[in-house]
Formats: sequence, structure tokens, C-alpha cells
Amino acid sequence: MMNFISETHVRVRYGETDQMGFVYYGNYALYFEVGRAEAMRKLGMTYREMEEKGVYMPIAQMNVKYLKPGRYDDLLTIRTIVSQVPTSRMVFDYEIYNEEGILLCKGNTVLAFIKYSNHRPCPAPDWFLERLLPYTN
Amino acid sequence: MMNFISETHVRVRYGETDQMGFVYYGNYALYFEVGRAEAMRKLGMTYREMEEKGVYMPIAQMNVKYLKPGRYDDLLTIRTIVSQVPTSRMVFDYEIYNEEGILLCKGNTVLAFIKYSNHRPCPAPDWFLERLLPYTN
Amino acid sequence: MMNFISETHVRVRYGETDQMGFVYYGNYALYFEVGRAEAMRKLGMTYREMEEKGVYMPIAQMNVKYLKPGRYDDLLTIRTIVSQVPTSRMVFDYEIYNEEGILLCKGNTVLAFIKYSNHRPCPAPDWFLERLLPYTN
Amino acid sequence: MMNFISETHVRVRYGETDQMGFVYYGNYALYFEVGRAEAMRKLGMTYREMEEKGVYMPIAQMNVKYLKPGRYDDLLTIRTIVSQVPTSRMVFDYEIYNEEGILLCKGNTVLAFIKYSNHRPCPAPDWFLERLLPYTN
Repeated sequence: MMNFISETHVRVRYGETDQMGFVYYGNYALYFEVGRAEAMRKLGMTYREMEEKGVYMPIAQMNVKYLKPGRYDDLLTIRTIVSQVPTSRMVFDYEIYNEEGILLCKGNTVLAFIKYSNHRPCPAPDWFLERLLPYTN
Repeated sequence: MMNFISETHVRVRYGETDQMGFVYYGNYALYFEVGRAEAMRKLGMTYREMEEKGVYMPIAQMNVKYLKPGRYDDLLTIRTIVSQVPTSRMVFDYEIYNEEGILLCKGNTVLAFIKYSNHRPCPAPDWFLERLLPYTN
Repeated sequence: MMNFISETHVRVRYGETDQMGFVYYGNYALYFEVGRAEAMRKLGMTYREMEEKGVYMPIAQMNVKYLKPGRYDDLLTIRTIVSQVPTSRMVFDYEIYNEEGILLCKGNTVLAFIKYSNHRPCPAPDWFLERLLPYTN
Repeated sequence: MMNFISETHVRVRYGETDQMGFVYYGNYALYFEVGRAEAMRKLGMTYREMEEKGVYMPIAQMNVKYLKPGRYDDLLTIRTIVSQVPTSRMVFDYEIYNEEGILLCKGNTVLAFIKYSNHRPCPAPDWFLERLLPYTN
């Protein structure tokens, strides 16, 4: 088990809303992506480096619960949580709050590790697991 | 229980791919939306009419499993399945296939019925349930 | 000079609207892309093949005039016009109409031809120009 | 004439790239929107307030020149310039730079002022013009 939490912010763009006046449900995937990217940056690396080192992390699963609508110009807080040590897969949990601290949306994504050279699944790279070590129980 | 199945097609746009060379995971939400919209059209009404009659259907949940990558210019088949009679919620299941008949992605969404006048949940409108009657066991 | 016109259709998705209740202005770039892709398909090839043959066509310029709003579920007609023989650049003009035949939007894009192998501009490939020959004055 | 310049930053999301490995050309419209929104915030109001006061600002024109590709995870600088006092229209110019200071893209948008109550064009509201006064020559 492990316990790593990262918080980052995004402001809702007009183009991310729909005619209901709320954030379009598919656009939370972009916010989750921002949450993941900033979580990795906080761990001392970037997803861009991961790809440059020949490992891709496509999404295998996504689950989302929409609790309250997000609105244009809301400054959202994305809380990204890693609670399982990655194996050949990595789970990220997300909670998205608005400025009033209301939980708008929660969800998770499961990502695979894929070696670029042979397009095959591979375990999480050692150098990446080392970054997670301080957060491992 | 009920059994309604609708099939429709979308062609993957360049802007829906990402630098991995595949359809970006969040864009399947748009394809699910197309599947839902065409399923409703096949039932003899449109989601646009639903809103014009004062009922909104925001998304409450989405779950997606990504099995194989979708690629630029693929002509996808979206299979949309309704197997539960709607109450105050409605479940749509989706399967997305490419031209070779390979299942790329499956998922579901749970939608709520919301009355526009008071922004409160409401049961599925009678006139909508009537359209589903022929497919009910 | 040349004269090639292609027409294709897209239906406006909910996720392509914004809280003003209209198609978000940036999403017309996706419709232009659909127009271009179908124009090329009508010429007997696809943009996917172009890339497979080692030529990329990034966008160098886009100009758009928004005349009337597009709305959710509108079945749009995209008219794509090629009136100049491509050199190292290719110009596409677009007109987008709704079902009532009202012109919503017009614009153009200028695309470059780039050889993948050396990332350098190149002239339009001969096999592509041959496809355009029947439409050349 | 006037002279107001605002700078803000966005980080390129994975979902904003396409399979060419660059930012999809249509997504610069989102970056321009961020530039505009932050320019207005810097002037002491927000576009959200504009709408709440009954004035909408739909886009009438957009022109973009793509000079160099934007890439995933680039931290872009959006420079937004207002050099003409708004009348019933308002022009924003944009320049987008990457971290190396290379100009990737420049463009402009023309926005209309529309009164929500009657859906008719109107002049820029006085309270808005007052905010611009310090920057007017």
C-alpha cells in the first residue's frame, strides 16, 4: 500500500461547458489527465519523460461519478491520489472540488505500462517506483 | 426488463486522436453521446425534444473499459443498448467496434431525469416510456 | 485554377456546444477537418494514406467568419472547395449550412506539405496532383 | 487607440495534441479564450460577470497563423493585446510562445456585444469601457 496525494487547479473554460450550462461530462477526462500529470511532476518526473524513456501509459479503465455540476470560470481543485503501488498497472483516484469546497466529481483511471519498442505490457519502471518509495507503507 | 439495441457510425477525426496515435480516452464520451442520441432518434424522438419539453438528462455516472485503440479515420460502429426500463434514472450500455469488427471499448452511462422548471429529479416522462413499450418484456 | 467541390454532413454533438447554447467557435475547426477529409476521399484517396506515404499536411493558417450560430443536433452541410492547384501549400475553402440552408460559417485553411523523413516542406505529391487533374481548368 | 497587454500561461494537455504529435490546430481557440478571459480578469471584471449583467460576446471572426508546432506539456505563454477601443465589436490579438520564447502562433478574434434580453447587437457597456480608460491614448 502507499499514500500519495497531489493537488492542482484548473479553471473551467467556456469551450468545456455545454448548452446545459455545465462542464460537459467527457471533459472531466481532461481534468483527470491534468491531475495525473501534476501528480507525476510532484514525484520528480513528468509523463513526457516517461514516453521519452520508451514507456507509454494508455488508459485501460475510467470510472466517474458526477455529483454536482462544474460551471464556467470555476477554479477547480483536482485532488489526485495514488494508494496502490503500481505493478503492470497503475490506479489513480481523483476528487474534483469547486471554490466552495463542494465535491463535484470523483473517479478513477487504471493505466497500463506499455513498452514502446515492442508495444507489450511491462512492469512499472524501477526508476519510477523509486520515486514512489517515500510514500509506501 | 427491456431490450432495445441501436447501431450508428462515427468516423474518427484527426482532432480526436492524441500523440500516442490513438483516440484520446476522453473522446469516447462524445461517441457514447452520439450512440445515445441516435438510439433516442430511432425510438421516434430526439434528446433536443426532451429538453424542449422541459426535461434535462445530465450524466450521473460513466464507466469505460478501453480494450483496443481506435485510430484516425476508423469508421466505428457504436452499439447502444437499453436493457432496463428507465425510472428516475436511465442506463445506456455501449460497445464500440472498428471496421474489422474488433471491440475497442465498452462502457455505460447512467443519466438522471431533471425537470428544468425546478431543477429537481423526476421520473422518466410517460410519453418517453411509451416509446420504449414495444421493447419491454 | 481548378474547381473541385465536395459536400458532406455532420450532426452537432452536445459536447460541441457551449453554455451560450451554440457550437463553440473552436469546434468549427473539427468540421473543416471533416470537410477536408471527405473532399480527399471523394478524390480517391484519404489523408490517412497521405501520411502513410510519408507526407504530413499541417495547418499553416485558418480564417473563419461566424455568421449565424450552429445549434445542438443541427445536421450541418459542409461545402469544401478547392479552387487553386496545390503547390507547396493547399488552400481549402469551407461553407457550413444548417438544414434550412442558412450559411452559418465560412472560412479557409492553408495547409503545408511536409515530408515526414526530413520534416521539410515539399511540393504536393504527383500522385495527388493527378487526382486533381480532372478538376483543373 | 489603446494599449492593453496581458500575459497568462497554459500547459498543453495530452488530449489537446493529435497524432502528428503537436497541438491540434483547433485547440488554439481554447488558448485564445483563456487569454481573453485572463485579460478581462486583469481589467477588474470577468467574462462570467459580463454574461450575468446580460451581455454576451460571441465570436464573429477568428484568424490564426500557425508558425511552429506546440507540443505536449509545453508551458505556453499567451500574450493578449487590446489595441482598439471597443465599439459594438472588440478585437483581441494573441501571440503564443513556448518556454524557449519561440512564437508558435499568432491570431486575432473579433467579438460582438449582444444584449441577452433582445439578442441584438449593442455597444460595449459603459462600465466595461471605464475599465479600459487607463489604457486609452
